[in-house]
Amino acid sequence: MASTSYTDSILLFGDSLTQAWSDGSLAQRMSEYYMRRCDIVNRGFGGYNSDWALPVFEQVFATKEAREKGYAQQVKLITIWLGANDATLPDTPQYVPADRYKSNLVKLVQLVKDPSSAYHSPETEIVLINAPPIIESAWVEARVEKWKSFGSEGPKPEQNRDKKVTKQYADAAIEVAKEQNVEVVDIHSAIIEAAGGEEAEQLKPYFYDGLHLTSEGYAVLFKALSSLIVSKYPELNPETMPMRMPHWADVDLANPNEAFEKVKKGRLAGEL
Amino acid sequence: MASTSYTDSILLFGDSLTQAWSDGSLAQRMSEYYMRRCDIVNRGFGGYNSDWALPVFEQVFATKEAREKGYAQQVKLITIWLGANDATLPDTPQYVPADRYKSNLVKLVQLVKDPSSAYHSPETEIVLINAPPIIESAWVEARVEKWKSFGSEGPKPEQNRDKKVTKQYADAAIEVAKEQNVEVVDIHSAIIEAAGGEEAEQLKPYFYDGLHLTSEGYAVLFKALSSLIVSKYPELNPETMPMRMPHWADVDLANPNEAFEKVKKGRLAGEL
Repeated sequence: MASTSYTDSILLFGDSLTQAWSDGSLAQRMSEYYMRRCDIVNRGFGGYNSDWALPVFEQVFATKEAREKGYAQQVKLITIWLGANDATLPDTPQYVPADRYKSNLVKLVQLVKDPSSAYHSPETEIVLINAPPIIESAWVEARVEKWKSFGSEGPKPEQNRDKKVTKQYADAAIEVAKEQNVEVVDIHSAIIEAAGGEEAEQLKPYFYDGLHLTSEGYAVLFKALSSLIVSKYPELNPETMPMRMPHWADVDLANPNEAFEKVKKGRLAGEL
Repeated sequence: MASTSYTDSILLFGDSLTQAWSDGSLAQRMSEYYMRRCDIVNRGFGGYNSDWALPVFEQVFATKEAREKGYAQQVKLITIWLGANDATLPDTPQYVPADRYKSNLVKLVQLVKDPSSAYHSPETEIVLINAPPIIESAWVEARVEKWKSFGSEGPKPEQNRDKKVTKQYADAAIEVAKEQNVEVVDIHSAIIEAAGGEEAEQLKPYFYDGLHLTSEGYAVLFKALSSLIVSKYPELNPETMPMRMPHWADVDLANPNEAFEKVKKGRLAGEL
């Protein structure tokens, strides 16, 4: 939406964990947090791994040229949350080897940070989020239930994940963040810490199928992400960001249009 | 956010009833409904009346020229939800006389529908939403509680609304919709019907302060709005709209980029 009054956005990029718009999801929580300050743009694609995320990124992130000409919102911050699908077992369709997962994350970061990239955006803060822990038993049960609900056609689904492998990918994202000098939310550790351990019974409240987060799981993420934003990027603290359009009680009743005209003068260059 | 993969949007325009991004709010429900199909853009401004909405609209709705050049998303549908603040009592700051409220709504509709308007957008469906009922006693109590929470400074708030007046404005929006040949969601009647009456005790589950909707209140709205969309604008039924980017299981593993390249060829003209 070309909008003259909301020139800023925060882009949530990733897989199904990002895609969710349910009550208490990351997107819902962030939208409420930045209400009237900044648009939250959800570019989560369920099931996608980092191989597929690369060509998709080039379609969902505006080019430097488009942004500089004012045809696109500034992306003040991007969360890149991938790894949960890369970490499926070898010989399954979503699997990406850990080394390539790491190099894909580096490529994504460099698309934004490299001055020679067509997508170079120095004003965009980058936050990686790593793969959460999984509950192996709950995940394979959920897969079998889904297969049954579709009439048990085709082979019965088997386990396609391993919690130790997921942990390796979670660690890999932290390594990339350090090497690339970008921030990371270690949701993998944060959920285990909140749960008091990584046993199935301990992790249960945070996952509805052993892989995807409940509102309680997203609450742990939102707390970590919003704390990171406030401490590392105080200019992105919504409490200190200007509200788009004045508070209604601040509108001068004798001359109401003045308040809106002031905003109008700040129109994006590319808006016609 | 200039995005090549999401060329369509639905714009929610209005006051605080639109602004909310809480669990179960209109914006959250619509975002989940249109997940990966279409962006939901929230342009709700708490406290605003239809007088103030007019200059603001011109800043949040892209011009015809910008859209035709491909610099802006198409707005497939706009909800215009105003009236709750216009219907405050005369001599209070948000009050707009009913006649001017009606002519403001007509102006908003014509900004989109009139071929000579700079904001003309024939592809945009327009749905008006009228003011919900209110619980007078709960609203004045909420105002007083808020005043107390801020240290009881200034004069004690008095009642600034009347349920019969709100009903007049709700009827006025329906009249405008008929005259202008656009659709309307009569949330005023729908909530009273769902509640089984308009007594305070009956309406209570639908309002948290006598004016603003609970998730249960928004559920009534969402049911009415989504039913209207499916019946009147079948092309906007998310179940039949193409998903942006293919389902992960449809990606050809031997040649994964082909799926994304196909989308790329459909890039917006104005994207660089």
